[in-house]
Amino acid sequence: MNNVHDLQPTLDRAAAAVSSPPDESVIAQALLGVEKCMMDLVNSDVEVLRDASRHIIGAGGKRVRPRLALLAFFAAGGTSADLKDVTAIAAAVELIHTASVVHDDINDHGVLRRGRPSVNALWGRTFALLTGDFLFTKVFELIAPYGIYNTILAEATTALVEGETLQASAVKNRQFTRETYYRIIGLKTAALFRAAAMLGAKCSGASERDIQALGEFGFNIGLSFQIVDDVLDVVGSPEQLGKTSGIDIAQGRGFAVAYENENGQIVEHDDTAADPMISIRKDVLAGTALEEARVQARRFVREAIEGISHLPESAARTELMALAESVVERDF
Amino acid sequence: MNNVHDLQPTLDRAAAAVSSPPDESVIAQALLGVEKCMMDLVNSDVEVLRDASRHIIGAGGKRVRPRLALLAFFAAGGTSADLKDVTAIAAAVELIHTASVVHDDINDHGVLRRGRPSVNALWGRTFALLTGDFLFTKVFELIAPYGIYNTILAEATTALVEGETLQASAVKNRQFTRETYYRIIGLKTAALFRAAAMLGAKCSGASERDIQALGEFGFNIGLSFQIVDDVLDVVGSPEQLGKTSGIDIAQGRGFAVAYENENGQIVEHDDTAADPMISIRKDVLAGTALEEARVQARRFVREAIEGISHLPESAARTELMALAESVVERDF
Repeated sequence: MNNVHDLQPTLDRAAAAVSSPPDESVIAQALLGVEKCMMDLVNSDVEVLRDASRHIIGAGGKRVRPRLALLAFFAAGGTSADLKDVTAIAAAVELIHTASVVHDDINDHGVLRRGRPSVNALWGRTFALLTGDFLFTKVFELIAPYGIYNTILAEATTALVEGETLQASAVKNRQFTRETYYRIIGLKTAALFRAAAMLGAKCSGASERDIQALGEFGFNIGLSFQIVDDVLDVVGSPEQLGKTSGIDIAQGRGFAVAYENENGQIVEHDDTAADPMISIRKDVLAGTALEEARVQARRFVREAIEGISHLPESAARTELMALAESVVERDF
Repeated sequence: MNNVHDLQPTLDRAAAAVSSPPDESVIAQALLGVEKCMMDLVNSDVEVLRDASRHIIGAGGKRVRPRLALLAFFAAGGTSADLKDVTAIAAAVELIHTASVVHDDINDHGVLRRGRPSVNALWGRTFALLTGDFLFTKVFELIAPYGIYNTILAEATTALVEGETLQASAVKNRQFTRETYYRIIGLKTAALFRAAAMLGAKCSGASERDIQALGEFGFNIGLSFQIVDDVLDVVGSPEQLGKTSGIDIAQGRGFAVAYENENGQIVEHDDTAADPMISIRKDVLAGTALEEARVQARRFVREAIEGISHLPESAARTELMALAESVVERDF
């Protein structure tokens, strides 16, 4: 994996993953442009940065954020002839997310990510830290010329870091309540989803009202996406998810923990038990936390869909609504 | 240290450190503006980010980068009436450096920084990683509206991360030669010095020729600054330097290591010796590496000074030249 010099296999794999067959959809073609933009951007004379970046980008992932940006662009009236800006923005959004997962895997000791060994696992902590920094700085090089877009994206990135930090603080101080949970996921996940949708819409020259509506749509499906992610962390296996699972309960966080904390079921878990994870997981699976999580996630999706119903009917609007549904119905 | 809510004592300390008395100098006043800009910028509802950021910013440091930006601004014709942009740029440059030292201290296990415990030592690795990320993202929020300045600064930040990575790679692969050393310090230190000086000059509306000349000046004193830093890491004590010293030789890097590697004196050090650090340090001190380093550093300072001799004579130009001299003559 230390010799990723040829882009083509990665791009082919991305093409296959994005849609089947890719030429059925304008979005699939546009997403290929996003892949290429990301892979080109992280080229560097410093081999380890290039290789580690392409390793994690080439692993694929759901690409829900760039898809959201592109669909918002088309739903707000953008055309295929004018994809340059939205491609850069979509790549920037995905790379911000990617940088954050590289750093997350250091803090969480995650060894599996997107079905591959994490950067941390392959290159070690020092290079993982620097690769995450590199991805952040390359994003800001990419979007430096974009003025106001730049401010929106920088603010969303700050929110992401604040959300991650608030989460670590709440765990440390054993204050992982439901109120804190919603504040955390608003910052660490939904803010970037909102930025993706707003900026996609902005690139199409949409009205301020449509930009705001699509931003709100993004925020709501971001909340929903994160809640479902937290459910899957409890119920899913590493094979299904392509990443280390069970981390949330082990670390005292996630929807289930917030729910159980507030319902007095998990106040403090016994670190000295043979495997506290197994017994807590059993409690969570037996309880109502996960059902409650799905209910909340569906509520946000409903709000999301209602919020863009005023947009003119289009294939992109239909796909946006389908994206919202898929966020809550997914199994990985 | 977890309760840094009142800015005034920090600003007072900064005022005292910058110059004595501060009203003697326009630069000292401008540097106070930079301190305030940095402290205000890192305000956050997430307490640990605000506190850890203000802890490291409030520790002071030499402020050579913002000083360089401000002096370049004045030397290229800028006036006190028009400090807004250059203040933001100078703060951004100093914060990029600050973010990088917070992350460095994770990778190097540094426990002392600017005479205070490092963020890593006080808040632990997870929060130190997130604080560094936060400082990077806040910088990009700050400079998002600055267009082309933004591109220059983002590129310098990428160079910094590349330089740090190249250094870690060269150490790991035992390829720490003099050629690699110069490439490393060009990227990790001199590129940001160049950006500071160029952007300072740009803010004054200078000609392209003067911007380039001041950029070259910055690059040269950046090289010189880093060489002297590496000398001081060998000869200085933690008390003098305000940071953990002796790290470079312990990690197999720095000017002395590059010099000795190429002169066949340190090929591989014996990790199993009782304290390999002490014997290597003795060899280096007895040899010519440190004298050679000082000679090189002085050469870059001379080039730097010659390169701005065409600028009109001014107090700022005189201070720039004095800054260049001080970089190489300093003891901490």
